[in-house]
Amino acid sequence: MTLNAADSDFHDLLQQRLPDGSVRPAEPRYLEEPRGRYHGRPTTVVVPKTAEEVAEVVRLAAQERVGIVPYGGGTGLVGGQISPEGPVPLLLSLERMTALRGVYPEENVLICEAGAVLASVQTAAAAAGRLFPLSLASEGSASIGGNLATNAGGTAVLRYGNMRDLCLGLEAVLPDGQIWHGLKRLRKDNTGYDLRHLLIGSEGTLGVITAASLKLCPQPVATGTAVFVVPTPDAALSLLALAQQQLGEMVSGFELINGQGLAFLSEVLPDIRQPFDAAPEWSVLMEVGLAHGMNAQTELETLFAEAADRGMVLDGVIAQSQQQSQDFWSVREHIPEANKRVGAVISSDVSVPLGSLPDFITKGKQVISEIGEFRINCFGHVGDGNLHYNVFPLPGGTSSDHANQRAALQRAVHDLAHALGGSVSAEHGVGRLKVADLERYGDPAKLAAMRAIKSALDPLGIMNPGAVLRT
Amino acid sequence: MTLNAADSDFHDLLQQRLPDGSVRPAEPRYLEEPRGRYHGRPTTVVVPKTAEEVAEVVRLAAQERVGIVPYGGGTGLVGGQISPEGPVPLLLSLERMTALRGVYPEENVLICEAGAVLASVQTAAAAAGRLFPLSLASEGSASIGGNLATNAGGTAVLRYGNMRDLCLGLEAVLPDGQIWHGLKRLRKDNTGYDLRHLLIGSEGTLGVITAASLKLCPQPVATGTAVFVVPTPDAALSLLALAQQQLGEMVSGFELINGQGLAFLSEVLPDIRQPFDAAPEWSVLMEVGLAHGMNAQTELETLFAEAADRGMVLDGVIAQSQQQSQDFWSVREHIPEANKRVGAVISSDVSVPLGSLPDFITKGKQVISEIGEFRINCFGHVGDGNLHYNVFPLPGGTSSDHANQRAALQRAVHDLAHALGGSVSAEHGVGRLKVADLERYGDPAKLAAMRAIKSALDPLGIMNPGAVLRT
Repeated sequence: MTLNAADSDFHDLLQQRLPDGSVRPAEPRYLEEPRGRYHGRPTTVVVPKTAEEVAEVVRLAAQERVGIVPYGGGTGLVGGQISPEGPVPLLLSLERMTALRGVYPEENVLICEAGAVLASVQTAAAAAGRLFPLSLASEGSASIGGNLATNAGGTAVLRYGNMRDLCLGLEAVLPDGQIWHGLKRLRKDNTGYDLRHLLIGSEGTLGVITAASLKLCPQPVATGTAVFVVPTPDAALSLLALAQQQLGEMVSGFELINGQGLAFLSEVLPDIRQPFDAAPEWSVLMEVGLAHGMNAQTELETLFAEAADRGMVLDGVIAQSQQQSQDFWSVREHIPEANKRVGAVISSDVSVPLGSLPDFITKGKQVISEIGEFRINCFGHVGDGNLHYNVFPLPGGTSSDHANQRAALQRAVHDLAHALGGSVSAEHGVGRLKVADLERYGDPAKLAAMRAIKSALDPLGIMNPGAVLRT
Repeated sequence: MTLNAADSDFHDLLQQRLPDGSVRPAEPRYLEEPRGRYHGRPTTVVVPKTAEEVAEVVRLAAQERVGIVPYGGGTGLVGGQISPEGPVPLLLSLERMTALRGVYPEENVLICEAGAVLASVQTAAAAAGRLFPLSLASEGSASIGGNLATNAGGTAVLRYGNMRDLCLGLEAVLPDGQIWHGLKRLRKDNTGYDLRHLLIGSEGTLGVITAASLKLCPQPVATGTAVFVVPTPDAALSLLALAQQQLGEMVSGFELINGQGLAFLSEVLPDIRQPFDAAPEWSVLMEVGLAHGMNAQTELETLFAEAADRGMVLDGVIAQSQQQSQDFWSVREHIPEANKRVGAVISSDVSVPLGSLPDFITKGKQVISEIGEFRINCFGHVGDGNLHYNVFPLPGGTSSDHANQRAALQRAVHDLAHALGGSVSAEHGVGRLKVADLERYGDPAKLAAMRAIKSALDPLGIMNPGAVLRT
């Protein structure tokens, strides 16, 4: 079925049917994405204020056979929010649906609308004496709706899970324009198929999430941060197992840092204070969030001593202040920016089973070297088996020098992750960037089921056409 | 579309196409369920040994338009495993698919087939120095496949989540006979719609789960058990909040016990040792699983002292030995058996938002009293907002005296839970028992989406016909 473009007639129809100020030409910022890979075409953006208005927009789009791209904070890294080809779709931005509908600290629940910015939800939870644990680099602009649509990950997944693990219920407009009122505040509800988990991670292709009921957590009583130098990635995993054996869920973050990333930081962001004078080849940033009566310094020292006895760590620093803890995290958080300034030939977001992680790192080096000479910065959420595996030109070279090797490099990294039972998109989603990867690496029975579900719920194909599944 | 019965021709066809010993007439045990509400009809049971054989069965059933009821441990409480009407379906029992396909302690992962009994998986995890936390009364016979199909709950959900939270991947045969090979060992994998979560909780209506990749957890270093007497259910919730504030995720279990349940125990199971001479009206059984360096006795004493200061607890006992801890749990675990012996007029499995729980208990008493004079035993997983709300005749009466009030009682309890934003099936599922409840209380947009998904994935309607959705 062919869709129609969101043309001026459709713009006028929306303007007629929606309150004043809801419909306007999309500003250029809606047509760009952080990595500059995709470019949108001029179109209309509609900014509804209620789920009912969203439903009206979806019904009109269905009636006129116009595609809709739901738009959150615009921070997605796989082009899910940009339509570069096909009939121009309407942009449906949730930016005016930011209300906090309710905070229930005694239930550890918060209900907010989809346009709420992640950082504002973290702040609202903190004001209620609770923690909303999702934490990622773009939290100052990413929206809850986008976090849900992409099942966002980040640095606290090890302890608290992905976005889907933090959602108790949804309100959403389905492709036929019906509103699903599913904002439950329940920990247990076994009444039929889990539509919530189907919409989460479907990247706007099965409906528009308009509000969510989110899980809050108790705030840890004491927190601590350390950077431990490890001899190998394998040792990092042993250190993680030891830490979890001693502290259980209280290990909140465990990030692998590669010497190449620290060298990039020294080169392009020299003001970022680094914990060691000589950049270690492998180190881990560990965060613990402890119960009452526990002391972070003591726990981290005990862990270090025991890990050192077993040869898992070579050196370490434990943050002595809030400031120092922030400095350690700042190192980790600026690595993507340093990567960007150096200019990667390819970036990857792969995951592998934890036990295969050292193997992935060793073999990754090998398959890359068969293509050419490159620098590799391999870092990330190692506790989740999730690595951002980025490949860079040698010093003096530029990314564009290697344009003709890009596809081979990406293929080699994805083939390797897949061969080890891994995923070619651990946390960023499929968007438009990885549609072909999904076809290549996805299980055929799963793909057939996905297509059947898409056709059943969105028979006209109006929801985010071209994302996740080929139209 | 009308299905055909699993008749003797179909029996013969299966026998031709499957290895010897795979097909036989179903013994009576397959045609009964624990509560005696549903009675199956004589039919064939097929007991495949591999996913490929399951796929062959499904393809033959599709070809001959015969319904299939997937069969796990047979412990379900809502009739999902029994077909009392319509064309007689085939029973597909996973009982010979019990293999442990792999244990990966360093990854906290275990892969087993769907017929594996829950207790055997717990044992295999313990042998690897890990915990598989799902814990429920029927764990000695319930299967992993059944636990997944019903998204089982139990007593450890507060800390570790429902069955869906403990599953990383699935292998399943879809209704068209294709095998989905989705046994990933990944913590993060955002490659398309989450078919795993769609199958989990779908009660065999969208496919047959043949194996699962399960999450393991570190074993707590120290555990402790206490029974605290609380003045009100409200105080129990405050106690829970205090415990979580101090101990975070280390609060593993928090079960509400009602004096009525203790009175039933004294009456029909007098050998069960109770913690208090005079049964308190409300008490909670609390379990903690602590990190290294912590002492359970100290933590529980500290918590008791602080809670007593705030008027949240009136009395308490802390288990001084493994035996005493088991005795406390034995009280909780024998309450359902005591209920059964006394003979309930109705049993419920509702959940409400935690904040509405005290209100539910107060109003519940009221709506029941408007129907007649009854005894109420209201107990359960209060940390999850999940209550088993059971209504009994007065002493001397029997359940059958009140047969004509049963529907009104069930309706009153469900109406109340629904009005408070709750669920009429917190952990047992829909099965055949609650199909009408789902229609009554379910969100219409969600129901329409469920029906569309069912038609898309199982257009012939062969998978567990009559369960969850009306045929």
